[in-house]
Parts: sequence; structure tokens; C-alpha cells
Amino acid sequence: MELLDKLQWRYATKKMDPSRKVPREKVDRIIEAARLAPTSSGLQPFEIFVVTNPAIREEIKAVAWNQGQVVDSSHLLVFAAWDNYTAERINHMFDLTNEVRGFRNEGWEAYRQQLLSSYPQRDAETNFSHTARQAFLGLGAAIIAAAFEEVDCVPLEGFDPPSVDKILNLREKGLRSVAMLPLGYRQEEGDWLVNLPKVRRPLDQFVTEVA
Amino acid sequence: MELLDKLQWRYATKKMDPSRKVPREKVDRIIEAARLAPTSSGLQPFEIFVVTNPAIREEIKAVAWNQGQVVDSSHLLVFAAWDNYTAERINHMFDLTNEVRGFRNEGWEAYRQQLLSSYPQRDAETNFSHTARQAFLGLGAAIIAAAFEEVDCVPLEGFDPPSVDKILNLREKGLRSVAMLPLGYRQEEGDWLVNLPKVRRPLDQFVTEVA
Repeated sequence: MELLDKLQWRYATKKMDPSRKVPREKVDRIIEAARLAPTSSGLQPFEIFVVTNPAIREEIKAVAWNQGQVVDSSHLLVFAAWDNYTAERINHMFDLTNEVRGFRNEGWEAYRQQLLSSYPQRDAETNFSHTARQAFLGLGAAIIAAAFEEVDCVPLEGFDPPSVDKILNLREKGLRSVAMLPLGYRQEEGDWLVNLPKVRRPLDQFVTEVA
Repeated sequence: MELLDKLQWRYATKKMDPSRKVPREKVDRIIEAARLAPTSSGLQPFEIFVVTNPAIREEIKAVAWNQGQVVDSSHLLVFAAWDNYTAERINHMFDLTNEVRGFRNEGWEAYRQQLLSSYPQRDAETNFSHTARQAFLGLGAAIIAAAFEEVDCVPLEGFDPPSVDKILNLREKGLRSVAMLPLGYRQEEGDWLVNLPKVRRPLDQFVTEVA
């Protein structure tokens, strides 16, 4: 399967070439993969910030262990998950669904009420834990899309989320940063990982059959 | 990009044909995509259970809102994340890395110590929140792989995790169920979603440029 070749090709790029820019149409298709990824109840509880501003990237780098890819990449994607589920957010997605499909469905409306009567009442941390997982599913789709575009990337969790939230004013938008994905092109000299073999647990430590 | 076509093709299959089996080699490639997916620090803090046993699937269905795909699918994948990070688990992956690469690297060993001095000291819920995100990244890879194999699937979170943990004895293995992925083939009659358009927020509600 071609997908497995792409997953073998990709690696967590440690050094990016600051002189090479990713064509915008490739960036757009990578974002589109994340947008099309499935999410729980179709709520899409996350957004993507595309950071190209050099000064802001320097600020982010300073709270991300000074990882060079933050500034050497061509586009820095920041995945930001909803800080909570609210009635407004849930209703927005159900209303949008009715609008796109052109009808209201009784079962779908009952499902809306089920979510409205449970999600907003849960504590914010429980809900954020749920939205962050959905963002990571979308992150997975973006990483794979980058490989299909032959664009290098590195998923980064090594940063201080409250600081990034502040730099991008995420909290006032009801969002919290959960991961970053610098997109760019590898600079082989200076990248200690590029020629090392990929390491994964063998199947017998990863899969259990319940037959 | 072919990937976007695959993401458009897939949908959360509501009714599966119980008479059709997914060839094992397709299941294996779907699992391989999840195994190859990147995870934070390469720790791969999750496992996959492939449930084909009919009695156990009936038990799971009963704690999963009686969703038919749990038993009508050909293979039920259960994604189970580590319940915590331990020194043993971290050392295992670092040792495996040294073994595969055939050498010890000073920077890599310093990174091991950094994780050992922070992850196991955090509370289990914080660590589980982190491992679950990684499992969802792998889940995303598996969903995309299924589409490439023209296998239908539906990511399910609508189940009682403690009950599934008990049925599969996950807690005694230090694991907690986070998502299920029934694999199979759609049965168009009886599937209310199959012919409805996919709904996603428009780009202007999903992407913010920071230029």
C-alpha cells in the first residue's frame, strides 16, 4: 500500500532548510486533510493556526526549547483544541449539518439533545481531554498528507502550551494549543536523525488477537 | 492528492454487512499504518486488540450502546493506551532504539534521563491524557489506511471504557481503552449516513493565518 511507503519515508525532521518554501497549494492540501479527518460526533473541536510571521515564530521558539524547526520551517501549523464544549459550539455544528443536508432529522435532533444535556455539564478539563484527542487525529492526517506532498514535518509537543496560547491569543478564542507541526524541507547536513533507521515495537508487542 | 480522495470516500459506516470478511492482509496493513505512525518521543504508548471472538464482541456491544458495527464488522480493533508512563516502559523503548541502531548516543541517553526524571513522577491521569492523544494519532493513520484498502470503518468512542477494559482485561496489562475501530464493508440498505454529504466547517472557521 502506497500509504505505508509514505509512512516509512517520513521522519521527525530535526533540521530544516530555512531557504526553501513549501508551495502554498501543498500547505492548503495538508490543512484540508486535517479538516476532512473524522472527529467525535463530527464536532471538529479544533482549529489550525498557520504561523509565518517571523517575529511571532521567534517568540514561539523561545518557549519551545529553542527548537530550530519552529523558525526554519516554511509554515508553522499550530493545532489548537477547544478549551471546552459549549451549547453554542454544539448547536453550531448541528445547525451547519442541517443546512448542508437541507433537512432536519428527528434522530439527529435527538442526538443533538443528548450531547447538549451531557457535554457542557462536564468539567472543562474532561472536555478538553476529549477535544485534544480529536485534534491529534487531525494532526495524524496532516502528517500523512505532508508525506504525500513530499513535504517534511515534525510533530512537536515540546513547548509550553500556556505561553503559546498567550502569544497567539488562543485562550480568549476558547482554544488551547496541543501540538505544533512545522512544515518545510530537510537539511540533511545537521540532521542527526535523517539517516537513522525508524524504530517501532515489533508486532508481538503491539497487537493482541482476541479470537 | 490521492489522500484527499480517500478522505472524501470514507465515512462513519453505520451499517456493516456481517457476511463480508476483510482479508487478513488488509487488516495487517491497517494495523501497520498505526504501528508506523509517529508518537511523542517515539514511545508508542498504545496497543491494538483485534477482537474477532463473537461472544466477546457481543459483550462489548452491550456496553457500547448496542451499536451493530461492533458485531457486524469483520474485525473489531480496540485501541488501548498506556495507563501511565513508567521507568520500565520508557527504558524499554530507549533500549530497543539502541539495539536497532546498534549504538548508544550521548544526547539520546540524556534525553532518556530527562523523560525518566519527569514522566513517571507526574500523576497517572496527566500521563494517560498524553498517551491517549498518541493513540488517536495512530487511530487516524488506521482510518486512512482502511480507506486506501477500500475497507469501511467507523471510529467509535460511544462505549463505557471501564467495561471494555474489564472484558479485555486491559487494566491488569496497564492499558485503558480509548477508541474502537470496527473494520468491514458497508451494507447500504439500513445505513442512514451512506448517501448524505460530508459536513465540515468551512476553511474560514477552521484556519487562521498569522502572517
